[in-house]
Amino acid sequence: MLHGDEWDLIERIRRQVRGAGSVDVGIGDDAAVLTVAGDPARLLVTTDVLMEGVHFDLTTATPSDVGRKALAVNLSDMAAMAGRPTAAFVGLVLPRARGVRFADALLTGLLALAAEFDVCLAGGDTNIWDGPAVISVTLLGQPTGARSVLRSQARPGDWLMVTGALGGSLGGRHLHFTPRVQEAIALHATVDLHALIDLSDGLASDVQHLATQSQVGVIVDAASIPVHADVDASLTSTERVRRALTDGEDFELLMALAPEDGARLLTHLPFETPLTRIGVCTADAGCWLTGDSPGKDRPGSGGELVPLAPDGWQHRFQ
Amino acid sequence: MLHGDEWDLIERIRRQVRGAGSVDVGIGDDAAVLTVAGDPARLLVTTDVLMEGVHFDLTTATPSDVGRKALAVNLSDMAAMAGRPTAAFVGLVLPRARGVRFADALLTGLLALAAEFDVCLAGGDTNIWDGPAVISVTLLGQPTGARSVLRSQARPGDWLMVTGALGGSLGGRHLHFTPRVQEAIALHATVDLHALIDLSDGLASDVQHLATQSQVGVIVDAASIPVHADVDASLTSTERVRRALTDGEDFELLMALAPEDGARLLTHLPFETPLTRIGVCTADAGCWLTGDSPGKDRPGSGGELVPLAPDGWQHRFQ
Repeated sequence: MLHGDEWDLIERIRRQVRGAGSVDVGIGDDAAVLTVAGDPARLLVTTDVLMEGVHFDLTTATPSDVGRKALAVNLSDMAAMAGRPTAAFVGLVLPRARGVRFADALLTGLLALAAEFDVCLAGGDTNIWDGPAVISVTLLGQPTGARSVLRSQARPGDWLMVTGALGGSLGGRHLHFTPRVQEAIALHATVDLHALIDLSDGLASDVQHLATQSQVGVIVDAASIPVHADVDASLTSTERVRRALTDGEDFELLMALAPEDGARLLTHLPFETPLTRIGVCTADAGCWLTGDSPGKDRPGSGGELVPLAPDGWQHRFQ
Repeated sequence: MLHGDEWDLIERIRRQVRGAGSVDVGIGDDAAVLTVAGDPARLLVTTDVLMEGVHFDLTTATPSDVGRKALAVNLSDMAAMAGRPTAAFVGLVLPRARGVRFADALLTGLLALAAEFDVCLAGGDTNIWDGPAVISVTLLGQPTGARSVLRSQARPGDWLMVTGALGGSLGGRHLHFTPRVQEAIALHATVDLHALIDLSDGLASDVQHLATQSQVGVIVDAASIPVHADVDASLTSTERVRRALTDGEDFELLMALAPEDGARLLTHLPFETPLTRIGVCTADAGCWLTGDSPGKDRPGSGGELVPLAPDGWQHRFQ
């Protein structure tokens, strides 16, 4: 970037950024200086890169949408650790042809979401080139509760539960979803979450990560999966379930917890976002779909198990 | 990235990564969990993005060079705070046509430098597209000494000093330079550094950042600037000074400190890297070049002051 423009942009960003108690030195020096709370002081760090043409399309998303999403996907990762986000660092690669107005709009979207979640933009790096836009965000946060909730502590017999509803996100919801930060913190304060992950690739794929890293198997009940209203209602129920399993970018939370804790949440939910039991963890490895609930055309209807693959279920059941 | 390839790559990275005491949970969960030392626990964070065709060229740099540089520029920023680096987070945008071998080579270069500086690769994000390579690194570290060394505390009368020699870096040194992390920590332990910055844009530009942020002026003595052997010896001495002032990517340290501390360092240098006095800070704002040392063809020869601009000195003196 032309240095004058870059400094102007950084100055404009700096003026828009709200300070935060934990940020001693923010934008403008060689590094930010932060104070980390807790004894011992524990820190959560997550990073995600969004690329034009891959994660967003500037014919359907505004620059402000893109800035919002770049932070939102990181907030979702922070939620998946039941962490409270504190500070963000943003690496911008800006297309020369879009000019500085693009950068301003992008940061407006990002900073609005940052304000909602009390996140301080504490530093970054701005660059310009003739290629497509790339936005890299690294988000810092602090654990809540006594320990962080990992992906790897699910136990056989645990219930699997999800927040919200799944599928159809790429129709537009992926730009405007609310990261489940508050829900994760509330859940972690209420029950003993054994494992927690956010759904970015899609339930069919992400449940395998949870299962593999926890060394358990899972059985997901196809009929219980909450299908989002964004999924075309004219599709068959089988196809709607497949969309909920594989569309991805839901940014809902998938968790494993003891059945008694799951049952308690269903009667005393600490927030308004829906929570649904969608399956169980098993001692035997493997990811399976069952469908012994309504819908004769569903895979596994009648109670048999069919293998769940990252792209849905196996072809012989299509 | 194809999910299988991405997981294979992450697994290969994970196997290569050495654990570190401060990293409780590294690669493989939704976020890393780190313990931050100190009471209060203070953290330094810096981020830099390198882009193919802007910061590196794959016809002259190997993928390993690129990975090394992506970390090295962040280590240089950490040095500019006299910080000790601890953990890195890497966002990769990989060109599909270069395949997974490119990613492996890039990480080999990055991890070799990480090992030299005792930095743990604690997380990241890998992506693939049909565009050029982009590598975003966020580096965490801990302050050394009682406080962090900022850019903004230089005082009138301070000496300006630089490590190493300047100019000609883009001929190849920019890929292989040694970040001045150890030098910065040693300096900070030995004297009271008022201000510290690393030279990435070039001395002529970076000295202005130090001056502006410290609200001082500076007078740089052209004849005292250490010109690197990488600068073509057949150039005029005026042109060689200009190259040292403006080539950029030196990744040396520029500091401001009391004259008695500067003089003490010149007699008892705590490391082998050269350290040179190149000017002074003044109460009046403005950046000036003088040249009352050897070289009649130099700007300001005879002792007059000429305005120092980010691109060298003003045209009337060319």
